[in-house]
Amino acid sequence: MKKHYLLTPGPTIIPQEITKAMAVPIIHHRTPQYRDIAKSVNENLKKIFKTKNDVLTFTASGTGAMEASIVNTLSRGDTAIVVIGGKFGERFAEICDSYGVHVLPIEIEWGTKPDPAAIEKVLKSNPHAKAVFMQLCETSTATVYDVKAIGEIVSKTDAILVVDVISGLGADDFYMDDWKVDIAIGGSQKAFMLPPGLSFCSVSKKARDLIKKSTLPKFYYDFKKYESLIEKSDTPWTPAITLVIGLDKALSMITEEGVDAFIKRHRADAEFLHDSVKELGLKLFSKSPSFAVTAVNIPEEIDTAKLIKALKAKDVTFAGGQAQLKGKIIRIAHMGGIMRPDLEHALKILKETLKSESLKV
Amino acid sequence: MKKHYLLTPGPTIIPQEITKAMAVPIIHHRTPQYRDIAKSVNENLKKIFKTKNDVLTFTASGTGAMEASIVNTLSRGDTAIVVIGGKFGERFAEICDSYGVHVLPIEIEWGTKPDPAAIEKVLKSNPHAKAVFMQLCETSTATVYDVKAIGEIVSKTDAILVVDVISGLGADDFYMDDWKVDIAIGGSQKAFMLPPGLSFCSVSKKARDLIKKSTLPKFYYDFKKYESLIEKSDTPWTPAITLVIGLDKALSMITEEGVDAFIKRHRADAEFLHDSVKELGLKLFSKSPSFAVTAVNIPEEIDTAKLIKALKAKDVTFAGGQAQLKGKIIRIAHMGGIMRPDLEHALKILKETLKSESLKV
Repeated sequence: MKKHYLLTPGPTIIPQEITKAMAVPIIHHRTPQYRDIAKSVNENLKKIFKTKNDVLTFTASGTGAMEASIVNTLSRGDTAIVVIGGKFGERFAEICDSYGVHVLPIEIEWGTKPDPAAIEKVLKSNPHAKAVFMQLCETSTATVYDVKAIGEIVSKTDAILVVDVISGLGADDFYMDDWKVDIAIGGSQKAFMLPPGLSFCSVSKKARDLIKKSTLPKFYYDFKKYESLIEKSDTPWTPAITLVIGLDKALSMITEEGVDAFIKRHRADAEFLHDSVKELGLKLFSKSPSFAVTAVNIPEEIDTAKLIKALKAKDVTFAGGQAQLKGKIIRIAHMGGIMRPDLEHALKILKETLKSESLKV
Repeated sequence: MKKHYLLTPGPTIIPQEITKAMAVPIIHHRTPQYRDIAKSVNENLKKIFKTKNDVLTFTASGTGAMEASIVNTLSRGDTAIVVIGGKFGERFAEICDSYGVHVLPIEIEWGTKPDPAAIEKVLKSNPHAKAVFMQLCETSTATVYDVKAIGEIVSKTDAILVVDVISGLGADDFYMDDWKVDIAIGGSQKAFMLPPGLSFCSVSKKARDLIKKSTLPKFYYDFKKYESLIEKSDTPWTPAITLVIGLDKALSMITEEGVDAFIKRHRADAEFLHDSVKELGLKLFSKSPSFAVTAVNIPEEIDTAKLIKALKAKDVTFAGGQAQLKGKIIRIAHMGGIMRPDLEHALKILKETLKSESLKV
């Protein structure tokens, strides 16, 4: 009998209440029963996105919703400013490239956050730029960006601000409306405590003008098709019914705890983890650590791949680094169904394992 | 204590073994554990698609995979022949339109199957047509098309044959390779006995040339991104892990029963249903009835909406007609987890309910 501690930044541990909710006999999606669920999901998602805008739910990974934010707002030949400070910033740029959207990259050192003044400067010298793309939490570096300051700047221009909040939402502070974000993109397998398979877009009024003018081709992700049905709580294509039912349960758990209390708990867990890791003599990789996931530098004398493997053998899974960070960091998630005792246990195992001579390079 | 009989053409009844498989603690997708599952899924899907080609799995509804088949093979301004005999034929045409692909529609009366000679004629007079799009089973009319005969014709041209087998696969005969189909598109919530959320594309060698030349923009659905990772049983984006685990279970159940026995059982159930419906004095809508789903004409003196509602109150759900068939037919699915006793029970309730005076127009 073993319990496995999956502390990766997606998927995260799924509470049994949610698993159970998804395990009931399936219902059809063109029924009042399902529409009630879809309605409650939309209303509760708004509370977490901190927005008055509807939140559209897609049957797709987060990348699908990232693509949706581009194909619905832009046209071939448009210019977009993209903050690139990790793998997911790169992804926005890659999607733009695929669609013939010209990218003005704001490349920042991985593990740092973008300087709002730099974005202001690029916007000023490129007033034709249609959109700024960035993350709330860049999952690959476990770094939280200053969306509020950047929202203030972008809101004074004609450009829209598109923020991938996939890993940050629910853990890092985020206020879509107050921070003047035009499109916020979420995903199911993070603080929402669900399996992967759903992603979200919430869209501001300001973005609507651009959406009207957008000529990039789209079908599955066409916002207009979703929006035309949302009043009836209906969807254009067959939705991932069981995941939406699970989401409804997750959202009722979050709103019962209280959205702000839920976020506060994440902050406390993150701070606990940050302190504990430092007590182990380790350093945080990020200069602006997220409250959703923490990247920890692994000393050069330790073989990171071996460390991750040794931890896994002891039933604790952390993610490693991606791309240029491979072999240099471990990433410990503390979001959604990952609770304080899980973190405490994982830290204990990490402490033990780090002592092992066999991990030395 | 009630059991609900969901006899709709997607979602279909999910066996408890599959629900249980999806309810175990979630695993991470970048692990040998998950890759073993993805590998087994690909191998078993091939057996059902009757192909040597890999079967790519997307986290998306069937419509997503339909879009994938277009954006990966065609370019703006290309011409495509689309068989339109129902809502899903229309969908192919709509997606083509959205991407600037010129559609040569082969419009057929709903409930009938396309005449292969008509397609041959259109192909001959339009040798520049790049692809023919059609269904195996047009779900909206419960009609099976003659893919084999059309495959023979298309294979002699430079065009590729793209077949939406979403609702037909596993119930209606289908042999991707023998029937010379170039792209076959499947979905999870039909004979695969799963919740919606996954869809599939299998791609022939002939289609590869077109894929190389295709300039339609794509990212999430880019076949090349999936194919570059399939040898490692890896996926470009986070997959819907629990659904893939459920699929693995479903496929092991199907292959244990034997793929051919599984299909034979569907045929027997369909024939039983067709006969039983006729015994009730009702007529089948389709002139080429599918073995996955049956459309039944409802006599004019009966209010179809009321009938469906009355049945639902007795815990039997059938689908109604879509678009021009609304109020005229009911559709009874007999695929996947829908077993003979479910059909027998539903027929009994249908027989009883039809006698009710309150349904008279």
